[in-house]
Amino acid sequence: MTRGKFITLEGGEGVGKTTNLEFIRDYLQRRGIRFFVTREPGGTPIGEAIRRLVIDSQGMSARTELLLMFAARAQHIEEVIEPALAKGIWIVCDRFTDASYAYQGGGRGIDNAVIRFLQEWLQKGLEPDLTLLFDAPVEVGLQRAKGRGQLDRFETELPAFFSRVRETYCDLARQWPHRIKLLDATQPLEDVQAEIARHLDSLRQT
Amino acid sequence: MTRGKFITLEGGEGVGKTTNLEFIRDYLQRRGIRFFVTREPGGTPIGEAIRRLVIDSQGMSARTELLLMFAARAQHIEEVIEPALAKGIWIVCDRFTDASYAYQGGGRGIDNAVIRFLQEWLQKGLEPDLTLLFDAPVEVGLQRAKGRGQLDRFETELPAFFSRVRETYCDLARQWPHRIKLLDATQPLEDVQAEIARHLDSLRQT
Repeated sequence: MTRGKFITLEGGEGVGKTTNLEFIRDYLQRRGIRFFVTREPGGTPIGEAIRRLVIDSQGMSARTELLLMFAARAQHIEEVIEPALAKGIWIVCDRFTDASYAYQGGGRGIDNAVIRFLQEWLQKGLEPDLTLLFDAPVEVGLQRAKGRGQLDRFETELPAFFSRVRETYCDLARQWPHRIKLLDATQPLEDVQAEIARHLDSLRQT
Repeated sequence: MTRGKFITLEGGEGVGKTTNLEFIRDYLQRRGIRFFVTREPGGTPIGEAIRRLVIDSQGMSARTELLLMFAARAQHIEEVIEPALAKGIWIVCDRFTDASYAYQGGGRGIDNAVIRFLQEWLQKGLEPDLTLLFDAPVEVGLQRAKGRGQLDRFETELPAFFSRVRETYCDLARQWPHRIKLLDATQPLEDVQAEIARHLDSLRQT
């Protein structure tokens, strides 16, 4: 049994992850690939309960937030991601550990060494085969996110927070160029999607 | 301003923590000491939400459980414990990090090095000034816990789990004899409480 591929989508607010997720879903379906779409924090009943807590709670400490993200991730890996990949099912996950570096590391100032320790403990060798990082200037993304209505605890952070998130994501893309593909989300949608298709084509051939 | 003292209560199920907590409350009140009673997991609105999740969820991975315990602890330290101690208020806490070593380490087999990493990251120098460890044979404790009615996710574990929890607690008491005072909870209550009073008398003089 060939192991499934593990694809993650990353990026700040309003960069078009949801729209492009539909494109990826369609791409995989047309090629008869068995896949499962999931998200973090979340993806399991316990993870979704943690997600509600993280998004809705006022006055949460940065360290609590990081530990909750990894608590949800531990459950997600054990209950969903690893069993699916082992059965040859592809996983498409909206945000994963890169988001912990970007939001809790870059955004909230948690020491990277702590994130790395938790990552290594939980993931052992598990890393995404492909990470699509959607990048856009902070103002563009926030403008789009605001258009969606009610903002959550993350979306109401100050622009400086999102600048640090974006910078951290770009640093990660430079650090892991083979895995993380940075996509300019300000391009016309069809150009973004042509790039996504090229990355998925390459992934199918590995 | 003299810093408050930090007292923790530890032990397995049905060892009389609740009864003796009342005794401690009474002891401190009579001596005019300002104190605050709290518990883990819990002690803050976020921590209590995490407690419900930990106690009620089925199929939770051991690593998720550990991370949730420390997520609640991070919030508790920052929001309640440190501010109170800094104001000279004593804290009496029903379970703290020793319980993570006993339950998630001994009971569920999580590597101690992971627990120690999280402890050092969150607590920096913060350690209890006095830990009262109530010890009783597993059968005695479980019999008492059953008498209380509905059992939670922890209380329905097999006796072998509680034996590992008890052994780990006793190991910790041997490792930290100055901080952890092991009390034989099978003694008559008045003897247990006389011992508690002696430990509190000593603590007041430090």
